[in-house]
Amino acid sequence: MPVLVMKFGGTSVATLDRIRRAAKRVGVEVAKGYDVIVIVSAMSGKTNELVGWVNETSPMYDAREYDAVVSSGENVTAGLMALTLQEMDVPARSWQGWQVPVKTTSAHSSARIEEIPSDNIMAKFKQGMRVAVVAGFQGVSPEGRITTLGRGGSDTTAVAFAAAFNAERCDIYTDVDGVYTTDPRVSAKARKLDKIAFEEMLELASLGAKVLQTRSVELAMRYKVKLRVLSSFEEQSDTAGTLVCDEEEIMESNVVAGVAFNRDEAKMTLVSVADRPGIAATIFTALSEAGVNVDMIVQNIAEEGRTDMTWSCPNDQVKRAEKAMEQAKQSGVINFDEMIADMDVAKVSIVGIGMRSHTGVAAKMFQVLSNEGINIKVITTSEIKISVLIDRKYMELAVQALHDAFELEKAA
Amino acid sequence: MPVLVMKFGGTSVATLDRIRRAAKRVGVEVAKGYDVIVIVSAMSGKTNELVGWVNETSPMYDAREYDAVVSSGENVTAGLMALTLQEMDVPARSWQGWQVPVKTTSAHSSARIEEIPSDNIMAKFKQGMRVAVVAGFQGVSPEGRITTLGRGGSDTTAVAFAAAFNAERCDIYTDVDGVYTTDPRVSAKARKLDKIAFEEMLELASLGAKVLQTRSVELAMRYKVKLRVLSSFEEQSDTAGTLVCDEEEIMESNVVAGVAFNRDEAKMTLVSVADRPGIAATIFTALSEAGVNVDMIVQNIAEEGRTDMTWSCPNDQVKRAEKAMEQAKQSGVINFDEMIADMDVAKVSIVGIGMRSHTGVAAKMFQVLSNEGINIKVITTSEIKISVLIDRKYMELAVQALHDAFELEKAA
Repeated sequence: MPVLVMKFGGTSVATLDRIRRAAKRVGVEVAKGYDVIVIVSAMSGKTNELVGWVNETSPMYDAREYDAVVSSGENVTAGLMALTLQEMDVPARSWQGWQVPVKTTSAHSSARIEEIPSDNIMAKFKQGMRVAVVAGFQGVSPEGRITTLGRGGSDTTAVAFAAAFNAERCDIYTDVDGVYTTDPRVSAKARKLDKIAFEEMLELASLGAKVLQTRSVELAMRYKVKLRVLSSFEEQSDTAGTLVCDEEEIMESNVVAGVAFNRDEAKMTLVSVADRPGIAATIFTALSEAGVNVDMIVQNIAEEGRTDMTWSCPNDQVKRAEKAMEQAKQSGVINFDEMIADMDVAKVSIVGIGMRSHTGVAAKMFQVLSNEGINIKVITTSEIKISVLIDRKYMELAVQALHDAFELEKAA
Repeated sequence: MPVLVMKFGGTSVATLDRIRRAAKRVGVEVAKGYDVIVIVSAMSGKTNELVGWVNETSPMYDAREYDAVVSSGENVTAGLMALTLQEMDVPARSWQGWQVPVKTTSAHSSARIEEIPSDNIMAKFKQGMRVAVVAGFQGVSPEGRITTLGRGGSDTTAVAFAAAFNAERCDIYTDVDGVYTTDPRVSAKARKLDKIAFEEMLELASLGAKVLQTRSVELAMRYKVKLRVLSSFEEQSDTAGTLVCDEEEIMESNVVAGVAFNRDEAKMTLVSVADRPGIAATIFTALSEAGVNVDMIVQNIAEEGRTDMTWSCPNDQVKRAEKAMEQAKQSGVINFDEMIADMDVAKVSIVGIGMRSHTGVAAKMFQVLSNEGINIKVITTSEIKISVLIDRKYMELAVQALHDAFELEKAA
């Protein structure tokens, strides 16, 4: 029988009633003839409670014990979901990570899945079990210890199972009903997309759209797993939600698929850096070693032998970046006149695979912003994305203007 | 290094503060040179919460899923205890049942421990780990599924580890400071015992004293594990609590060690049963199949060919017993005139290994009760125990009178 993977996030299994509602959706797919693998998160709030206890007990905790404690929330939901399905006369059983086993690396708290042998679960499917309920977010290391995959890891678990079992589709049930052209709270014209390409979803996820964990999209793209994002609180249907798929499966699409934004960005500039070969490497190695996640980078030649170096990074890493640069200056590896941090910026991006074949998209974006009197501070581009850094106070305006100009409220 | 097993019950690990207090006690034993195996229960209330969820989800639950859900509370405490010890610079790690592995039977929710291989944990002790924190109450079946040992199972886990690791002693930390001659809430003269023999503890546990799980005492007796019961809320000392040990280690002891009682007993009588060979077997097989736990049994010959059959059982099983007897009567396998259930009775017992060598103990007990005007309804005896069923309203009076008469307030 074809296999379907269904993943339910924390809000979708927050209470026994919601677990029942989720189980009913599973029952519908079983009735259609699927063998179903259900991946569950912890009931919402539970993981935070456990993480809080660990932090209070041991601020510099041993990640192996962190994983042992924090993984327990998913085990509870897995058992309760299996019981709920059994009550509905659906043959089901729960599996914890080590029972499958979900083999991961030993990088506790941020482990990567290495292998999911399918034989144990497939044997049960052959014996008549219809649903395997698997605790998400967890696995087992080569040393036999419990690992976790990092926040949002249950999405990754779901996609990895879909790949390992060659599933027809991987349905991610969450509290939003799909992927939108932009955040509906910022633009009332935001439209739910029926389909989106992996590459676009990947850019949107890394640009701040919180629907799917970036790694799960990467994995889906690599193994060509059809991903569907849909709400567990809406009516069930075969076309609900948004399908994340290979771009070949999207017949027609807008040039721009969506507008993403991020409020928590800061812009930093080193003014009049003494330029020499390797200076950029020196600066960004120092920032990386200080744990600063640099996003955009721009270099301007100011005068002969001097340059201005600008980058963006998360707001809360500015202090760390300043300290690293001051130290580098004192130890003489770099030299600059001044360091400026601008905390009142935001990043706005447009994303779309259509950009590959359409010219003038960047020019149009800059014109739209200019028409609104919005000054662009930094620009970066990739093959399917253009990002700009602007004053934060213009962020909503920029998103709305771009959404209008590229006519994202209309389907292709 | 010698091994010590320390078990902390739910109230002793109810909060992060209490876990810290328990960890300090562990630290003291480590400093003395012990390698310590710590067995932990779930934080108090957690197991009840999980059991509640399972019952609400599926009243006739699959015991395998029940075990998967309910065992998670101990995993949380084990991780938190290991982290707390690490914070105190004590090398520690947590172990879940399947990691040790604690091999049990497949009787889910009431599994029995079959084997605890010591090599994994011993190897870690040799590498410098000083404390293995093990999640109590759980194990793994031959099929690789999680099992639990039944309520109070963490005591059994502790004793089984003490036996498997040939531990010097097994300390059970709880919310009472030891075993008393009787419940201090019933007799103000109740005295804490410094030592008690396994056999006595076993009788007391099965008669309703809630200090230790009966199975853990059986196991300790079989493997000669020195058990100590003590409070985690009192000052630490080497002589605190009560030592449960082989009777040879108790030099002098009172004839009677303690007075136990049970309020939740009912007395049932079938009046004028048609007697024939095998009638007792027929009646008690029917009761057993109906899930009635029969305790005391008395048979009186009323007249030629007729007999009165009396037994005691827990109050809340009376309805079930009545139904089973009515059905047996209707189907013609037994015949009786009347069925009487007396819910207002209590069982009072005296226990002591000294009874083996002292005569007249039973006579003295009956005389004491008679002096107080208390009528005895049923009597049963074993080698080291005499139990009587009396009107419940006299229970406290009986306990106090017996405690006085056998001078239990005085040490031997």
